[in-house]
Amino acid sequence: MHERYFDNAATTPVDPRVVAEMLPYFTEFPGNAATIHHYGQKARAALDLARERVAALIQAEDSSQITFLSGSSEGNNWVLGNYKDGKVAISPYEHSSIIKLAKRDGFTVLPPFEECLPEDFDIVALMSVNNEVGTIFDTELIRRRTKSRNLLVDVTQSAGKLPTIAGEIDYISASGHKFYAPKGVGFLYQKEVNLKPYLLGGGQEMGRRGSTANVPGIVALGAAAAIAIDEMEERMAHAASLKAIVFEAISKISDSQINGPGEKSPYVLNASFKGIHGETLLIELDQAGYCCSSGAACSSTSKEPSSVLVALGLTPEWMRGTIRVSFGKFNTPQAAEDLGRDITRIVEKLRSL
Amino acid sequence: MHERYFDNAATTPVDPRVVAEMLPYFTEFPGNAATIHHYGQKARAALDLARERVAALIQAEDSSQITFLSGSSEGNNWVLGNYKDGKVAISPYEHSSIIKLAKRDGFTVLPPFEECLPEDFDIVALMSVNNEVGTIFDTELIRRRTKSRNLLVDVTQSAGKLPTIAGEIDYISASGHKFYAPKGVGFLYQKEVNLKPYLLGGGQEMGRRGSTANVPGIVALGAAAAIAIDEMEERMAHAASLKAIVFEAISKISDSQINGPGEKSPYVLNASFKGIHGETLLIELDQAGYCCSSGAACSSTSKEPSSVLVALGLTPEWMRGTIRVSFGKFNTPQAAEDLGRDITRIVEKLRSL
Repeated sequence: MHERYFDNAATTPVDPRVVAEMLPYFTEFPGNAATIHHYGQKARAALDLARERVAALIQAEDSSQITFLSGSSEGNNWVLGNYKDGKVAISPYEHSSIIKLAKRDGFTVLPPFEECLPEDFDIVALMSVNNEVGTIFDTELIRRRTKSRNLLVDVTQSAGKLPTIAGEIDYISASGHKFYAPKGVGFLYQKEVNLKPYLLGGGQEMGRRGSTANVPGIVALGAAAAIAIDEMEERMAHAASLKAIVFEAISKISDSQINGPGEKSPYVLNASFKGIHGETLLIELDQAGYCCSSGAACSSTSKEPSSVLVALGLTPEWMRGTIRVSFGKFNTPQAAEDLGRDITRIVEKLRSL
Repeated sequence: MHERYFDNAATTPVDPRVVAEMLPYFTEFPGNAATIHHYGQKARAALDLARERVAALIQAEDSSQITFLSGSSEGNNWVLGNYKDGKVAISPYEHSSIIKLAKRDGFTVLPPFEECLPEDFDIVALMSVNNEVGTIFDTELIRRRTKSRNLLVDVTQSAGKLPTIAGEIDYISASGHKFYAPKGVGFLYQKEVNLKPYLLGGGQEMGRRGSTANVPGIVALGAAAAIAIDEMEERMAHAASLKAIVFEAISKISDSQINGPGEKSPYVLNASFKGIHGETLLIELDQAGYCCSSGAACSSTSKEPSSVLVALGLTPEWMRGTIRVSFGKFNTPQAAEDLGRDITRIVEKLRSL
């Protein structure tokens, strides 16, 4: 199942082992973690284990640095909301949750860069892996070299997929559903726990976030983190081999290009075909059972041109013919070969019309 | 299972039928609702059905008035955040998500009231059923009579339990986990969809809330709403009969009182026993297998005195000996009888020490 689902950067199916760990927390162990009786104790113990597992995934010093929330968009809003009155800079490749905050609050958008050394900001936001083209940013190196006081790294596209080391990074946001946990749960890491709450309420999450803790979702996130640590090497090798297969097929198509500067994630392949409408290609692929994406991971229904592709300087002619193929553990080499062959076939067909 | 779980105002076990409807959306149908291919279409169709079902639960005119989010705390933060610069009033019985916003942003806290007719505010926040003592507020009547321009009603303690009619109410917030859906999902109703987004991101939820839609959670919320409509009468009668059993037992205990003014929800019973420490009583009950609560639904780990009980004018002596028993569909008459008997036994034992 899901062999032909090549939109893993948008969301991933939940790992059946993750479902199995989560399931009892809907029915058998339904306690509210903020209650003192034995139902609550069971829920709290589950949160504690999940927090340890997530901390281990990003090599955090202590699990108390992890706060569970609804996803990385909430984390990004939370962090940058705390710096609203400060000097904030973002890279031009950021996710819409950060781009829109920048537009609303007048943050500085840095020029395109391959190696970012922003100086003199209160906080800089930078994703670890770009969601559209897969470019990897060496956030640890940037943290060490920049003079900016704080760095927020959105690891949504690398958590559970590539090693993450919290190290000297100040804030790390991520969502579970990009690495085989369910939608609706994520975490924020704080090196020094210093943010004012974004969501006010019952003082859950050690007073950091009001709202009843999503115990089953958090259990699932923890389970997915533990599995990711075990499978990291295997996942990277698997993705790289699939990407190589599709890459090879696309490279043989005339007037095609692979997009994105620098070193790229093995999980993402962004390609453009001159003279083609990406959406038409996607629809044809969809009819053949393949799921790929035309734009950003989370807003494919948007009609605006991708800000990332604009920042990369793609001309409209190339931009129009762009698709993203993103790999996951349920894809097979056979499906990747089939995809490469069918992209070639459909591109030729569309060009001949 | 869960016969002796009497903390249903804090959270409820998920209905097994709800789990069954939700389950395929973790693994079999894992699409991101913002994507255009067939995985995304399946997810979007699921959201559409859930939106219709939730709209039906509160008798909304149109499903487009419903926005899915992480829970009622987020909804409350969202609405009142939009009125931060206006004149805002809240009742003194509100949930911590509203009380804390009031403290931070300097909202007016109205005096205690049984019938609220606030005048001359941009928005008034009022819960439909108080989470601690169960008092029912006739929010429809209040909406018709007040001169305040907008009314936010937090129906967290009545959604799926008592009939809700959106009618002339401007905003309605609720969480799924109080009526047999999972934690981490809720909704906000807007009569006129006019709020600026609280969570910025990929423009999901018709541009109202950034963050990948929690498809399985929303499917579950919709399923729980549909079941609630069917079972509403039965649930109310069941809760009322259980409450009567425990009420009768407690009424026979000397120096005891039932707290809360006015008409009260059949799902909540709040009682005080003079000379007893409520927490000690709860621990003894817990050891006998019962879950009850000492304070508010969502923050029982808090050590602050309940603002609701303070507003009701309870003296410290009575306040100290307070417990909340909250009923749900998994409780049985036998368990209610046992609870009444064991509360009596334990109160007598504690008083004799």
